[in-house]
Amino acid sequence: VKEADGGPIITLTTDFGLQDHYVGVLKGVILGINPRAQLVDISHNVTSFSITEAAFSVAAAYPYFPRGTIHVVIVDPGVGSSRRPVAAHIKDQYFVAPDNGALSLVLEAEPQAEVVEAADRRYFLSEVGHTFHGRDVFAPLAAWLSRGIKLEDLGSHLLDPVKLKFPVPEFLPDGNLAGQIIHIDKFGNLISNIPAPILQEALNKSGKSNYQIYLGGRSITRIVEYYAQGKEGEPCVLFGSTGRLEIAANKAGADKILGIGLGTKFIVNFI
Amino acid sequence: VKEADGGPIITLTTDFGLQDHYVGVLKGVILGINPRAQLVDISHNVTSFSITEAAFSVAAAYPYFPRGTIHVVIVDPGVGSSRRPVAAHIKDQYFVAPDNGALSLVLEAEPQAEVVEAADRRYFLSEVGHTFHGRDVFAPLAAWLSRGIKLEDLGSHLLDPVKLKFPVPEFLPDGNLAGQIIHIDKFGNLISNIPAPILQEALNKSGKSNYQIYLGGRSITRIVEYYAQGKEGEPCVLFGSTGRLEIAANKAGADKILGIGLGTKFIVNFI
Amino acid sequence: VKEADGGPIITLTTDFGLQDHYVGVLKGVILGINPRAQLVDISHNVTSFSITEAAFSVAAAYPYFPRGTIHVVIVDPGVGSSRRPVAAHIKDQYFVAPDNGALSLVLEAEPQAEVVEAADRRYFLSEVGHTFHGRDVFAPLAAWLSRGIKLEDLGSHLLDPVKLKFPVPEFLPDGNLAGQIIHIDKFGNLISNIPAPILQEALNKSGKSNYQIYLGGRSITRIVEYYAQGKEGEPCVLFGSTGRLEIAANKAGADKILGIGLGTKFIVNFI
Repeated sequence: VKEADGGPIITLTTDFGLQDHYVGVLKGVILGINPRAQLVDISHNVTSFSITEAAFSVAAAYPYFPRGTIHVVIVDPGVGSSRRPVAAHIKDQYFVAPDNGALSLVLEAEPQAEVVEAADRRYFLSEVGHTFHGRDVFAPLAAWLSRGIKLEDLGSHLLDPVKLKFPVPEFLPDGNLAGQIIHIDKFGNLISNIPAPILQEALNKSGKSNYQIYLGGRSITRIVEYYAQGKEGEPCVLFGSTGRLEIAANKAGADKILGIGLGTKFIVNFI
Repeated sequence: VKEADGGPIITLTTDFGLQDHYVGVLKGVILGINPRAQLVDISHNVTSFSITEAAFSVAAAYPYFPRGTIHVVIVDPGVGSSRRPVAAHIKDQYFVAPDNGALSLVLEAEPQAEVVEAADRRYFLSEVGHTFHGRDVFAPLAAWLSRGIKLEDLGSHLLDPVKLKFPVPEFLPDGNLAGQIIHIDKFGNLISNIPAPILQEALNKSGKSNYQIYLGGRSITRIVEYYAQGKEGEPCVLFGSTGRLEIAANKAGADKILGIGLGTKFIVNFI
Repeated sequence: VKEADGGPIITLTTDFGLQDHYVGVLKGVILGINPRAQLVDISHNVTSFSITEAAFSVAAAYPYFPRGTIHVVIVDPGVGSSRRPVAAHIKDQYFVAPDNGALSLVLEAEPQAEVVEAADRRYFLSEVGHTFHGRDVFAPLAAWLSRGIKLEDLGSHLLDPVKLKFPVPEFLPDGNLAGQIIHIDKFGNLISNIPAPILQEALNKSGKSNYQIYLGGRSITRIVEYYAQGKEGEPCVLFGSTGRLEIAANKAGADKILGIGLGTKFIVNFI
């Protein structure tokens, strides 16, 4: 029974911030089309215009949502230009976004994705402006999907959705591994692009038994399982909640302690 | 059938911020009175004590909400004093706020509004303090409205709700138009008080065919339809999502680039 | 009828911030287990690692929620260590948190609380990591409680939940009262640890009729009922919305005006 399920879930990931009325407007538009939608914010504090940050957030969050969830991702510096709106069906969940790479990491993780160019204006607001397609295009598309409109009804299949290149871990000639900081969270944890299995593979290949991190002119040797194993403020290495290698510090921001910013490269040195 | 509609929508616009427990308390009070209410945040990051900013936000958001929506607006430096609580019925939506001008722009857009002084204490919490009427008065009023209590039941008609003067565009003797920056959004877009039809009217009267903006000692001549038409960081002029003339910059904050703050006046010079 | 009640309410109080995907993930996990849950944010902007701030927020908010509400509190620097997860039943509401003192103020206000160590892994996610028990442990526990799982089913009774010492008002030998600033809110209001009845008791004992505050080298003599009674920017004393003595300023931040930070001690001098 539909009534018992609490209504279809629609998540929102945007760079609209929480100061203006923009996010409220998205929600009003969605509830106007589907009053039963359950709205969940992933984040609206994505750095302005940062498509890669939005791509990271939605990719990190969607595996924890139930099937049928619809994820709206709007970081859209190209709004009003010829960039296309896309909708995708991936692992029993749905995604709506501008075709600018915001779904790159989700699409990469699931090559079987079904993607359409959502071009049918019946599923937009009746007036579409040039500056706020979140309101005029993406919120309505998500709301109509939540009402049971099929992906195929929104437009024709798209074979070449924009995919951004995200930095991948590099196996170095000397057997070490090169990584990059791809996200810094609210706590100052430095999240890298190295998933646990890749590190394990490189470690195995190296024939060594341990590793240290060279980052920002320092070597970090303290490898822990959880934050509180480190001394307060001591930089340490662990595998964080997204399964990636992370440099952190107990009750402190590793970003500030190490003076490290987004995009910083580092070496995993097997010893 | 009521069950099918997802429950009545109540939006919140406040200056309470997202650090404290205040917004959570509003929601607890509302759900205690009407467990079926659907709560939507417009913004809680209105600048502390800025009634005009709250007035702008709710006026910009409400047209995108379905009929029957109840909007609570609480920026209330006069809490505890003799200022009255008001409730209003405007274009099939409802508004609850202190009578301090927070509804000015909504009332201005709809002179047919029905406004009451919400004085019946049966629809407040049983204990009403002096410092948090959001909790004790406005949240309960909204919740009772959402349960079907009629506007007229809350109190008697109010003929003179407080209306703040918002700056209006000025037709200058030389045929030009004077405007003012009335909102700066998260992206640094400078939103003015000049709606598209007013500019068109002034342009027609001037007999000219084009215009430029004099703002902060600079002239801005690049007129575009959407942000990405400008060069990165280049100040340009467009009509934004609220239908007003806006000075913006592609992938950059026009506020920072131009060094412009809220309230700055500018000239639209027809050429 | 369950359908009519809008679904069980689950509140969230965390230090996860609103920048990352963490809060969205909590909500996805909860809705995956109980699609009917109604999620309410108390605050996600608790200062990183500040258990006392979370304890303050949830204690200030929960009395305004309806019976049956489930409150999840996650400030968890000890995540992954041997600290226990707890669940509690207090005054017809439920609480889920790490056993690190986050429930101190709630437990203190209600000695009859029923507390269990929530150790039954059937009510966790199937994979439990070392760094994000909000996702793997606390969100699932709350969701299962909201589906009717009994507190006793989660684990065995806990007699010694961690309770942090919060500073209490001190009756001084000279008859005066010593207090401390325990919370500074978004408006810069300085909220103390002195509840109205304690001040009244001390005033009665002193045989005096009035009082002034010595704080940060200044004496504050202006005692008001509501903020707007003070002159703009003038420090004044009132009883705020949590029933505690508060130093505030009309339309201004008392914290900035007085240069006062969290934990500052002060004297209530009866005169």
